[in-house]
Amino acid sequence: MRALVTGASGFVGGYLLAALRTRGAELLACGGPGDKGEFFPLDLGNLDSVRAAVDFARPDVIFHLAAQTFVPESLASPAQTYDVNVLGTATLTQAVRDYAATGARAPRILFTSSAEVYGRREAAEFPLREHLDLRPANPYAASKAAAEAVLLAEARCFRMDVVVARAFNHIGPGQNDRFVVASMAAQLAAAALHRTPLLVGNLEASRDFLDVRDVVDAYVMLAERGERGEVYNVCSGNAVKIRDVLGELIRIAHVPVEVREDPARMRPLDTPLYVGSNEKLRALTGWEPDISLRHSLRDIYEAAALAAGNAPADS
Amino acid sequence: MRALVTGASGFVGGYLLAALRTRGAELLACGGPGDKGEFFPLDLGNLDSVRAAVDFARPDVIFHLAAQTFVPESLASPAQTYDVNVLGTATLTQAVRDYAATGARAPRILFTSSAEVYGRREAAEFPLREHLDLRPANPYAASKAAAEAVLLAEARCFRMDVVVARAFNHIGPGQNDRFVVASMAAQLAAAALHRTPLLVGNLEASRDFLDVRDVVDAYVMLAERGERGEVYNVCSGNAVKIRDVLGELIRIAHVPVEVREDPARMRPLDTPLYVGSNEKLRALTGWEPDISLRHSLRDIYEAAALAAGNAPADS
Repeated sequence: MRALVTGASGFVGGYLLAALRTRGAELLACGGPGDKGEFFPLDLGNLDSVRAAVDFARPDVIFHLAAQTFVPESLASPAQTYDVNVLGTATLTQAVRDYAATGARAPRILFTSSAEVYGRREAAEFPLREHLDLRPANPYAASKAAAEAVLLAEARCFRMDVVVARAFNHIGPGQNDRFVVASMAAQLAAAALHRTPLLVGNLEASRDFLDVRDVVDAYVMLAERGERGEVYNVCSGNAVKIRDVLGELIRIAHVPVEVREDPARMRPLDTPLYVGSNEKLRALTGWEPDISLRHSLRDIYEAAALAAGNAPADS
Repeated sequence: MRALVTGASGFVGGYLLAALRTRGAELLACGGPGDKGEFFPLDLGNLDSVRAAVDFARPDVIFHLAAQTFVPESLASPAQTYDVNVLGTATLTQAVRDYAATGARAPRILFTSSAEVYGRREAAEFPLREHLDLRPANPYAASKAAAEAVLLAEARCFRMDVVVARAFNHIGPGQNDRFVVASMAAQLAAAALHRTPLLVGNLEASRDFLDVRDVVDAYVMLAERGERGEVYNVCSGNAVKIRDVLGELIRIAHVPVEVREDPARMRPLDTPLYVGSNEKLRALTGWEPDISLRHSLRDIYEAAALAAGNAPADS
């Protein structure tokens, strides 16, 4: 497989590159204009830049990960979120159409959407399935719903080869600590050294956590076997309270810590329960999650401890 | 009511301005950068331009009609369609947030979406209702679905006062003859003078036609009484074959004419049946269509005949 990866310099991008390398894929790993060195510079705001990357890579599959991915940032800067996530995606499809117009075989686009598109739901609707109407409740969610609309419409009218993956919460070593599990792990690692308190948001919220290595496996399987124009949830299928994740992390870290609620970490309209069905993905590809939540949390804490400069916890 | 109307120089805009004037509304009628004279120049691609219009109008309601509205043009220029219809809408919400941040009361945004967002459906799903998942099948439809996602998400997270009207096919005197009924009327008026043949697309398609004067009445009622964050179909509730519309126009025109199928007028993936339910709109506002299809077609043909320079048909 010849693969072009946008957003390759991000958290998920790094794991996806590793998974693709393991499978012997030929890669063009694209970063944003600010990235250095190993990444091909891609500016999704510039059609010529995207065309150049596609012409250079001649990909079978484009993994389109590049996005503004953080909900609070989207609340602070909606316009920039729409620009990167929606217009950037439309620029990519334009570049793919232009590439195909030269007689080349159009690549598949594997788009990484988000469970945020479902928004707040009735209890009876869980676990969430792909056919539901979308009710995005923040600019990030709206940008992903809008990009899906663009991609799936173009699949219908231009026969664009699109597969949409709706990822639920993914976690793993090295994630930016603006995300809840990474934040708790980093704070625990700091607490082990300095006895600082641990600041948390809404611990009662339940989320569907999946290790990023299982997430990228699903992406690769969907790139290989997903049906054109279809949407697939990528999730564990299990809801776990953030309080229980924190409990497990504290057991792993084995440090006494004071837990404090922090109003700044409470999201407006935070959703109490979020869990998806992965039945469609499993039925099509045979994908199964490989890494348990406990295994994932152990790896996350070890990475956080190393980053904080202290020794890993006892294994 | 103080109203700001974007896209006021368009077909629907003209009728909306008339309806608002009848009700004694204070108006700021905004046209695009290309419009002259009576229209306030508004560039939806430029935040400062939109801010200036909102600051100047201090509106209670913004009727957001400005858009690239023609499906075939969206197929030819997807990027431009997304730019105007999606980013333009996001720029408008940004300008409204900025305006509200000065302490002013944020206006309601009445957004004119389209039944195209529903896409191709199963027979059992007709008449289409507002809660369905969206399946846009061309870039115009995707742009409207995307703009809805942006507006409804901002209604949820920023308490933006948004009402979405999903209009089905609207018709009326003066419509651009790129649209099917206007095209048939204009060709009939020409045939009355020159015996030219009438070129048609798919006559078997059934559509839900509503006179533009009834459409704008619904928009005004929704601006006054629509529920924040809700979506309302604006339609007649009746499916009529385009063949029957043509038959009625020929009876009205009273001219012998040769009807020819024109492959260029067949849309890719044309939808055989399209009809909506207007129950939600009627239940909330008491709105009823006032102009019968026959009345509407008579007015349309008379306007087409006048435009073509021949006398109106016998009434």
